[in-house]
This record gives sequence, structure tokens and C-alpha cells, in this order.
Amino acid sequence: MRLNNVRLNIALVSDQIAMDYLRPAFAARFPGAILHRFDTEVQSPDALADIDVAVCWSPPAGLLACMPKLRLIQSVGAGTDHITRDATLPDVPIRRIVDAEMAAGMNAYVAWAVVHGQRHMAGYIESQRSATWQESPVVPPGRHRVGIAGLGVLGQSAARALAAIGYPVRGWSRSPKSGLPEGVQAFHGDAGREAFLAGCDTLVCLLPLTDDTHGILGADLFAQLPRGAHLVNAGRGAQLVQDDLLAALESGQVGSAVLDAFVEEPLPAAHPFWHHPRITVTPHIATRTGPETIARLTRDNLAQLSVIA
Amino acid sequence: MRLNNVRLNIALVSDQIAMDYLRPAFAARFPGAILHRFDTEVQSPDALADIDVAVCWSPPAGLLACMPKLRLIQSVGAGTDHITRDATLPDVPIRRIVDAEMAAGMNAYVAWAVVHGQRHMAGYIESQRSATWQESPVVPPGRHRVGIAGLGVLGQSAARALAAIGYPVRGWSRSPKSGLPEGVQAFHGDAGREAFLAGCDTLVCLLPLTDDTHGILGADLFAQLPRGAHLVNAGRGAQLVQDDLLAALESGQVGSAVLDAFVEEPLPAAHPFWHHPRITVTPHIATRTGPETIARLTRDNLAQLSVIA
Repeated sequence: MRLNNVRLNIALVSDQIAMDYLRPAFAARFPGAILHRFDTEVQSPDALADIDVAVCWSPPAGLLACMPKLRLIQSVGAGTDHITRDATLPDVPIRRIVDAEMAAGMNAYVAWAVVHGQRHMAGYIESQRSATWQESPVVPPGRHRVGIAGLGVLGQSAARALAAIGYPVRGWSRSPKSGLPEGVQAFHGDAGREAFLAGCDTLVCLLPLTDDTHGILGADLFAQLPRGAHLVNAGRGAQLVQDDLLAALESGQVGSAVLDAFVEEPLPAAHPFWHHPRITVTPHIATRTGPETIARLTRDNLAQLSVIA
Repeated sequence: MRLNNVRLNIALVSDQIAMDYLRPAFAARFPGAILHRFDTEVQSPDALADIDVAVCWSPPAGLLACMPKLRLIQSVGAGTDHITRDATLPDVPIRRIVDAEMAAGMNAYVAWAVVHGQRHMAGYIESQRSATWQESPVVPPGRHRVGIAGLGVLGQSAARALAAIGYPVRGWSRSPKSGLPEGVQAFHGDAGREAFLAGCDTLVCLLPLTDDTHGILGADLFAQLPRGAHLVNAGRGAQLVQDDLLAALESGQVGSAVLDAFVEEPLPAAHPFWHHPRITVTPHIATRTGPETIARLTRDNLAQLSVIA
């Protein structure tokens, strides 16, 4: 049954972030629709029965199951793990965001995070605090191999950007990929993992969170990297075994890390990552998609699912 | 007269940096040659009369004029202003370094410095000190225009890398350039300057230091940028009018700056740039060329000048 756009009930759902930033774009793209907030500030559970579409970032467990008319679960991010971890999730189509804007934002973050470690930028920023002119060795990008774990849209795009800077880039994916950017050395599967990791002076994690990748950034993996490797996690917090990273930094097996995603967000004030001299923490800002794009893609998905014309 | 490689006298000359890092590469590339250091640590003026080649970073004024047999002045950098500012400079060919390794190093620095400002990374690093999870707006690269002043080898290479990340890139040069990377919007000359600057959300200076570019980064130029623009100076310190930058940051006309080059290096401990909250200082490390490459290019230049076979 196709719904009239005018009567659509759209829920903006999150237990982590204030979703009101989406309201103007959705109001413009769905004129006449009714927008409901179920987020950190506003709860109006009475409306649950009417919801046609849930636009989500980390919806509270059990909430989507209370929406009997639900036809689309729209993630506002590139991943869906923040939705699928709900054991009571109803059998409703889930769609995620894939767009060039999100890829470009990730390119920028990854380029910054790789150079930040490779070129000792954290050290210069620390030296500036004491007005100290202290050079570190300048190793050209051509002699620093960057590996990207995860060759989806974001991984391939980041590989292209890093190669354009001048880094020798390698990539690893679960299954073989075609159409990779020119010059990117490809590895795949369990068989290719050891050879891939042995050539990662920097390792960038852009893997989706699955049962296979949960805790993948742990002691076993760190031991296969070149000693002193730089780690960038722009994937998911649950992919990183936190104590293993602290131990690898302590031993020198991992030299430094730039982390954007954490098991618990916001990262608790007492967490040891905050004050570690070789960890750079960013507050899950590696990339975003603009509200207009999310609204447009939600509409496209509703049309593709024949929910609206 | 062609000299026998075995008897070549090579001087490593600087009043700023210790040049001994070049010794192994030159010894390997010029077996049997005699290497002399005239730098911050060692002075052996007796040998001046024998020098055939001076390999230089900021040679002391007057020293090269005391080398009567000098046949080549080899800069170890992309610029020669640190050599030509010597009023007593003898009439001897000067060569600079242009190589892919140096361009890649600059690409990495410029990518980092642009993202550092555009994506509020300095703010995140500051927030980390107080364990504060504080998001800033995530503006996609596609909505942030980056302008590169100077479209030589380094400028064109940086333009290509920034475009690969996803930034809309524009470039300005004194005279029209052909063969620019695809998608880079080109401006040139005095006539093109205003239109160029008006579209620089970030301005990257990669100009050579000449009479025309001395002090070019001053109040007049800042006033032509969009309000709150980010400035990256990876050119030369003398291109920046320091007080004008401080005033533009104070007024908000310039939002932030990443600076790698300074009139006086090392930057004096009392300099206000060190402790300015919206200035990031790096100790002239944007790029370097490896010693092996400098030695190889020096040999190529000596052969091209018919000093050696």
C-alpha cells in the first residue's frame, strides 16, 4: 500500500544524539508529514503506533519493535550496527547512507589522521605549548606504507586520496574486490591478512562492525604489524580491544593511535585514552552526511520500497 | 675544464642546520671526493680556496664569495631565496631541488594543515586535554573552497591531492599556467587576484619568495578573503606580515592559521605565535628531500654544467 506523502509519520530516533538537526531538511523534503522526536531530549511514546519511517542513530533497544506500521528503518550513517544490535529489531527494511559527501568527509579525516602520526604532528603541537622548536625526522610519504582494512565505498575513496598524496597504499577486504583505485595493492580473506598487516606502517580501520570484525584490532593483529606502527580507527569502537591497544603502546609495538569511535560515547571522562600521550581522541566526527542528503536519500528509499510514489 | 670526480671538494654549508646528515649520501655518490663542513658546528675556513661545489641551506653571507673555484651552488630545498639574499653572492650557477619525494612530503603537510583548520582538529586536541567530548560542526570538504597561491611543481601537486580528498580547489599564479590538474579553477596575475581570494575558505601559500611576494600575506590580502578564512603558510616566513596576521585573527577576518616558515628560525621563544590559541606552529618541516636524492641531483647538475663527466 502506497502512503500519501502528506500523511507520513516520520520518527527521528536516537538515544545518543539530539536529532532535531534533521527537522528542517525533513520538513522541506516531506511537506505535510508529521515529524516525531524520540531522542535524548523528547520522548512521545503515544505516537509509536502511527510511525511509518524511523530515521535512526542508535535507537533505544525495543523501541522500533513498538512501531507496528513501520516500513523503513533509515540509518543516518554509513553503518547499521547501531541499529541491528537490538535483539528485538522488527523485520523491516534497513537502509544506510552512502554518498560522495560522506566519503569526502572521511577522506579528509583519514588523510589528517595518517599524516598526524606519520609526520609527528602531535609532537609539534605538544612542543608548541612550551615554545620549543624541535624537528622530528621528515620521512617522505613514499617510504611509509598505509594499509586500509575495509574496501567499501569509504575505504576505496580513502585509498584514492592517500595515493594522490603519495603514500604507497594497500587494502584488505574479506572478499576480493574489483575496480580498486589504480596502484592500490589488494589483499583479501584470512589468507591475505598476514601479508597485508606486515606492510602497514599505518593501519586505517574502515571495516563495518560484524561478528567477524568485533575485537579485530587486538593483540594478535597488533603483533603482525611492523613495530611502532600508527593506528587509525575510523571504524567502530567495538572493533578495538582497548586494553590490548594500551599494552601495545606500552610495549612500543604500536607507536601511536588516532581514534574516532569508542564502545561508550561520549568517551567517559575517566577513560585512560583521554590522557595517553600517544593517543589522539576525536569525538566521532570523522564524517557526517548533511541533513538535506539524509532526507533526500530517505525519500529515495521510500520510493524504491514503494512506500510512497 | 672538467674535474676528476676523485678530487672534487664539496662544501656542506649552513648557518641554520647541522649538515652532517648529508655526509653518508655524498660520500657514497662521490667516492673519493673531499667533504667539508661549514655549518653550525664546524668551521674550517682554510679549505675555502679549494671548494668546487657548495651544497647550501642558508649559507652565511659572504662565505660563498670566498670560494674562488666554486662551480655550483646547490640548494638543498625547493627555494633559492635563502642563498640569493647574500649581497656578495658570486656569479656561479645556482640549482634547487625539485623532485617527487619533496612534492609528496608537501602534499602530506598541506592536506594535514588544511583539514586541521577546516575540521576544527586543533579544538579537538585542546578538548582532549580536559577529557571533553565536544563536537564541532562537520562541514563536508565539498563545501569548503581551498585556494593555492603558487602553481609550481609543489602547488600543482598539492592541488591534485586536495582535489582527490574532495575539496573544490582553485589556484593562483603570476602568469597563466597550462597542464593544471583537472577540476582546478585557475586564476592569474593582478587581474585575477581579487576573484581568487574571494573564494578561498582556506588559502595555502606555496609561492616562491621574490620582491613581489615579500609581505604578500598582509592586511590587504586578508581583507579580500571570506571572513574567518583559514591560512596555511608553507611558503616563506618573509611572505607573512606578522602583525597583520595577529590583527586579522583578533578581528576574526582570519579564523586560524597553520604556519611552517618564519622570518627568524628557530622561531624565538618569546614570539607571540607560539602561544596564540588559533595559530599552529610547525618547525619548518613541511617537506624535505632525502640525502640520497640531494646527492644524486647535485651530481646530475655537475654533469649538466660539464663540471664533471
